[in-house]
Amino acid sequence: MAYEHIKFTTDEGIATVTLNRPDKLNAWTRIMEREVRDAMEAAEKDDSVRVIILTGEGRGFCAGADMNLLSGIEDGSEKREAGAVYGTKAYNVAVRSDFQTQYSYFPSISKPIIGAINGPAAGLGMVISLYCDMRFASREAVFMTAFAKRGLIAEHGISWMLPRLIGHSAALDLLLSSRKVTAEEALRLGLVNQVYDAEDLMPAVKVYATDLAQNVSPRSMAVMKRQVYDAQFLSLSEAVAIGNEEMIKSFASEDFKEGVAHFLEKRPAKFTGR
Amino acid sequence: MAYEHIKFTTDEGIATVTLNRPDKLNAWTRIMEREVRDAMEAAEKDDSVRVIILTGEGRGFCAGADMNLLSGIEDGSEKREAGAVYGTKAYNVAVRSDFQTQYSYFPSISKPIIGAINGPAAGLGMVISLYCDMRFASREAVFMTAFAKRGLIAEHGISWMLPRLIGHSAALDLLLSSRKVTAEEALRLGLVNQVYDAEDLMPAVKVYATDLAQNVSPRSMAVMKRQVYDAQFLSLSEAVAIGNEEMIKSFASEDFKEGVAHFLEKRPAKFTGR
Amino acid sequence: MAYEHIKFTTDEGIATVTLNRPDKLNAWTRIMEREVRDAMEAAEKDDSVRVIILTGEGRGFCAGADMNLLSGIEDGSEKREAGAVYGTKAYNVAVRSDFQTQYSYFPSISKPIIGAINGPAAGLGMVISLYCDMRFASREAVFMTAFAKRGLIAEHGISWMLPRLIGHSAALDLLLSSRKVTAEEALRLGLVNQVYDAEDLMPAVKVYATDLAQNVSPRSMAVMKRQVYDAQFLSLSEAVAIGNEEMIKSFASEDFKEGVAHFLEKRPAKFTGR
Repeated sequence: MAYEHIKFTTDEGIATVTLNRPDKLNAWTRIMEREVRDAMEAAEKDDSVRVIILTGEGRGFCAGADMNLLSGIEDGSEKREAGAVYGTKAYNVAVRSDFQTQYSYFPSISKPIIGAINGPAAGLGMVISLYCDMRFASREAVFMTAFAKRGLIAEHGISWMLPRLIGHSAALDLLLSSRKVTAEEALRLGLVNQVYDAEDLMPAVKVYATDLAQNVSPRSMAVMKRQVYDAQFLSLSEAVAIGNEEMIKSFASEDFKEGVAHFLEKRPAKFTGR
Repeated sequence: MAYEHIKFTTDEGIATVTLNRPDKLNAWTRIMEREVRDAMEAAEKDDSVRVIILTGEGRGFCAGADMNLLSGIEDGSEKREAGAVYGTKAYNVAVRSDFQTQYSYFPSISKPIIGAINGPAAGLGMVISLYCDMRFASREAVFMTAFAKRGLIAEHGISWMLPRLIGHSAALDLLLSSRKVTAEEALRLGLVNQVYDAEDLMPAVKVYATDLAQNVSPRSMAVMKRQVYDAQFLSLSEAVAIGNEEMIKSFASEDFKEGVAHFLEKRPAKFTGR
Repeated sequence: MAYEHIKFTTDEGIATVTLNRPDKLNAWTRIMEREVRDAMEAAEKDDSVRVIILTGEGRGFCAGADMNLLSGIEDGSEKREAGAVYGTKAYNVAVRSDFQTQYSYFPSISKPIIGAINGPAAGLGMVISLYCDMRFASREAVFMTAFAKRGLIAEHGISWMLPRLIGHSAALDLLLSSRKVTAEEALRLGLVNQVYDAEDLMPAVKVYATDLAQNVSPRSMAVMKRQVYDAQFLSLSEAVAIGNEEMIKSFASEDFKEGVAHFLEKRPAKFTGR
């Protein structure tokens, strides 16, 4: 598939999805939406891919919904288009409905998704960054919820995700004020996991992603990602029971045998994901 | 209404509620309780008010329940009075019961409530500060749960709120030890959003409150405040569904039209809240 | 009871449980498991004990499951043993099932459990540290989830506990990458409550534990510990209602009378726990 508003590459076990409208700070379009989903699903299916990076081309990560998209709302055309997008995916009964909405599907991808936040992430761009499993930011990254400055509301689950990442009071501050949050403050709030100088961001993300791709079990990562997201909806005893079931299943896996063997043999691991 | 234990002023869209027993570090009384609720409801009804500040007169924010109140417990008189207070408000079926208890009603006020924590907040005084949407603190502020030093327990929902603000382990530390937490540590724990030198606290809170009053949509703030508090009780897919409904409602609002217009016209916004 | 893999002492109201296989960095065995549980229950029953410290002998806190234990899995012998351990305790209907699993029972102990993390805490060793109410760490402590490097999964409830301590994104980072987290980073993440130089750790923990043992009500600590853990499973209005019931019960306690009396008489408290 040739992409119009993103770039998609895979290399050494790492898929990189790059939002690619740099002259618009990668403002979000319906085309971008379909293409990101297509790329994420391609990365999911590709057995050679173990980790996914999501980043933006140029100065920005994603400036939010393209203004044409917001303007389209007033004449009603956008509403029909939004409906069409909702309808593109078949419902998967094996995945919580929580992780099958228009933007909240990243947690249903079984591979880690690392947000490499290279510049401003505003409005919908910020929402999308929150559905990445982790966020590594450039010192030039800025976060802004933006909705209250447009007369809009907490869209697409940010009311739920943001408090679980940074606590509910910081979430209220950022949502109500729409103020700009620097990378440094974002680190203090827990909104990002790491901050780097701009030129060091992608090299550092690559080092981290390569470590995940080479040194840990892909099978373990897939099970644990699901365990952590699902645990938001479980009691502790349910989480323990699922952990016990998964532990027993893992004992029969090749990756467990390799995980013990490479440790005892003091050599790098060679996990297959089986 | 003339107030005895608080002061209440409104100016330029900002209502300020000041606990006003400075010689007692603003220790909490039944009179204060009724007056704060009355002032909050007056601020809610006043269309000119967009933001509420809660602070204390003099050196303290609120030293907790007045000792006369605690002493009244032993002869039974206080218990009857507490019952009377619970009964003063009609139950509002449109609001979660979680936000209709004796002290947990601040989240049911649709306008942001900023706690300007000017000095010690102890016991019930600390509980009340937690129900503010945000806490901006003076470097001279001190937080203390105090209950364990009195042989009391985690009162009025602090067992629920505190872990959601600072994590459950820090909450256990503060509740079990009753130790004093400085403003600086409170910032590190996420217990307060910002810390300022004592003389800078009120000016900084005013700047922040003025920004909320002038530059963001009051309609957006009201909807988002409810979304964030309610999201504690919702699945992600429920939060997304409510967000989608509210998004479509917001598209028809004057504030949305103004939110797009002022951005395209590169001028300050003039939101009406409609 | 004479212990083989732990040490157990009580002194001045403080019980200390020390994992004691220093030549193995205190790697976890079935014997250690039974002995820790036995010691925790002995501390619970001993009225002179008000606080419990859990620490490790030598350079390590706990390096995780002993490799013999992991190797035993492959021939099936370990599975039978694990089953036997699950069955050793009668089910207590007065305690949530969440706090009655193989490792998640620390919250059901009514006294504070302080983890004094003196060195590496890896895999199961890290899980066990998370069930302590608080963690005070030496600068030489290191945390590592370790599971993904062994082809294992998020075991024994860590998928549930870790996000509630450090947020879900930091939890994903630590679980998926299996990377080492220093004490300093652990403090920033909220994974530990305090960090000290190695030689200062035990003295500082003793000071804190002694303060709990002498200056706060044991009755208050027991009720509040249960309130905080249970609040994870309650609505705010339920937590408020339970708090109101417990508040009224506490009014009738000796510790409440003493809590008011020592304050008014400006003298140290002498709590009995009744």
